[in-house]
Amino acid sequence: MGGDHGPPVTVAASLRFLAANPGAKILLVGQRAALEAALPRRAGAPAARLEVRHAAEAVAMDESPAAALRNKKDSSMRVAIDLVKRGEADACVSAGNTGALMAISRFVLKTLPGIDRPAIVSVLPSMTGSTYMLDLGANVDCGPEHLLQFAVMGATLVAAVEHKERPAVGLLNIGEEAIKGNEVVKEAGLLLRASGLNFIGNVEGDKIYRGGVDVVVCDGFVGNVALKTSEGLAQMLGKFLREEFTRNALTKLAAVICYPVIAAFRRRVDHRRYNGATLLGLRGIVVKSHGAADLVAYERALERAAEEVRNGVLARITERLAVAPAAGDAPPASEAAL
Amino acid sequence: MGGDHGPPVTVAASLRFLAANPGAKILLVGQRAALEAALPRRAGAPAARLEVRHAAEAVAMDESPAAALRNKKDSSMRVAIDLVKRGEADACVSAGNTGALMAISRFVLKTLPGIDRPAIVSVLPSMTGSTYMLDLGANVDCGPEHLLQFAVMGATLVAAVEHKERPAVGLLNIGEEAIKGNEVVKEAGLLLRASGLNFIGNVEGDKIYRGGVDVVVCDGFVGNVALKTSEGLAQMLGKFLREEFTRNALTKLAAVICYPVIAAFRRRVDHRRYNGATLLGLRGIVVKSHGAADLVAYERALERAAEEVRNGVLARITERLAVAPAAGDAPPASEAAL
Repeated sequence: MGGDHGPPVTVAASLRFLAANPGAKILLVGQRAALEAALPRRAGAPAARLEVRHAAEAVAMDESPAAALRNKKDSSMRVAIDLVKRGEADACVSAGNTGALMAISRFVLKTLPGIDRPAIVSVLPSMTGSTYMLDLGANVDCGPEHLLQFAVMGATLVAAVEHKERPAVGLLNIGEEAIKGNEVVKEAGLLLRASGLNFIGNVEGDKIYRGGVDVVVCDGFVGNVALKTSEGLAQMLGKFLREEFTRNALTKLAAVICYPVIAAFRRRVDHRRYNGATLLGLRGIVVKSHGAADLVAYERALERAAEEVRNGVLARITERLAVAPAAGDAPPASEAAL
Repeated sequence: MGGDHGPPVTVAASLRFLAANPGAKILLVGQRAALEAALPRRAGAPAARLEVRHAAEAVAMDESPAAALRNKKDSSMRVAIDLVKRGEADACVSAGNTGALMAISRFVLKTLPGIDRPAIVSVLPSMTGSTYMLDLGANVDCGPEHLLQFAVMGATLVAAVEHKERPAVGLLNIGEEAIKGNEVVKEAGLLLRASGLNFIGNVEGDKIYRGGVDVVVCDGFVGNVALKTSEGLAQMLGKFLREEFTRNALTKLAAVICYPVIAAFRRRVDHRRYNGATLLGLRGIVVKSHGAADLVAYERALERAAEEVRNGVLARITERLAVAPAAGDAPPASEAAL
């Protein structure tokens, strides 16, 4: 039922998305009364491509994934994922409970052949463009073979969505030398070097934002910490900048004068432009929006799902895994390599 | 021999430090000719408290720690740490190779009783003050008992240096609930809850910068990634801000007008003010400066070492470990608890 802000945000974002995507259709899943109440009276033409599907229950943001899976058979989340399973929808977008979304998706959709565990992937801004990073929190204890699978899926996603033929893949580590890191990472490095991917080696944390790498692979614990740490730092810097500009009458005047500059800077690093993390490795496209997403952010998550559908991400990953299973002992034929 | 910039920075920073600390003395260890060449002719009164100790060799920044330990018996790093061992110096400050500094320090000084592994701790700015974080890269595979030892050492350091009686200790994790995280972190949570420390529970990465926690504990892999990720993000944001302010004549004018505001902001988040990471858990005080430290940053690392000496950090940690060994099954007597 739409994360922290509910239907007022998700319905409005859906209408904007439909206006921008004339070929698209949205099935809004949730409590019919609440969804219809959020629909404006004169929604215009796009509203014709928006259909409400009733679901009586909703998964709470703090509900345990296991409980949500077991007890909420008629939750909006479950009904939406069932629509993907039945082929009635091409993708599911949710701003709800991440753990529950992953658990229900895994249960209903299953993983792709060759994939043990789905991963959460998101795109982050960098000095030279953008960086895809996975896993961001679905898997807290990964083996080397899981990191290899993440790399294959991430590279295929970037190849499909960003139209880069051989995306550069880096392994997140605490030094660039191959001997650095813990045992899992060292072993994953060996698998990646033999994978046929465009593996550029170990990358340190700063590389995520410096750029020059398309896909950064790490286990979900490390990835989640890196992501949350970034959120905290960005918020602190934003707060300090605001405080300096509102310190006194003179600094407030300076703020007015350089408003366009600061606004341009803010637009450039606006995290809403990066909203929408994909649950990658499932037999269906599932995109998780930030729970606190506003209209702009939620529309971006819808766009992300649509991009993945348009670019046939699922078929491409399936194909890649069939040609070259994500295991280090089976390097792909070179012409099929990403 | 002084990291990336060498004697010109370390000698100048030493003189500034001595001018600000009338009771202090510095033994400059390294190639005598290079060090004396960096001493200004009229260095003034502080220079009388600066003494050069010759060391013929230097550990290279890319040298393996094992090779540095084995082959460089007369390196500036080894000679400086030997001075601490013999009690001729109270602390060693180096901008050199971190791995070699740790390896030589462990070999020469040994760890404190009750400590299996030294950790690297540093202080970071937060919305409400500052946060100490450890380990930042010395230990890539930690057990729960190591995280407990880090917590005890970190809390004692903060108690001594920041004069906070019961610093708030948080365990870096991917969720606040006790059931979150990998097995090591869950087990460490149990040990920390029984430790007598002021343990506030799991903290997510954003908390490092949001504040409200004095000590954040994590393994060295995660800590290093979080730190490097932060460096990369801060650099990217700084670059984007500069680019927006230098875009055209109008934005450049805006930059001139709000220069004092931006300068105040930059001072506030100046990473040089946080230079100096302590190698905690050794029988001696060893502080690592950033290799690229300039005069201001290097002076800060010297100050950090002096603060730890003045506040008897080593004695306090030793005392704390004697009363309450860093093991979960031996909670400390309440009056001795931090």
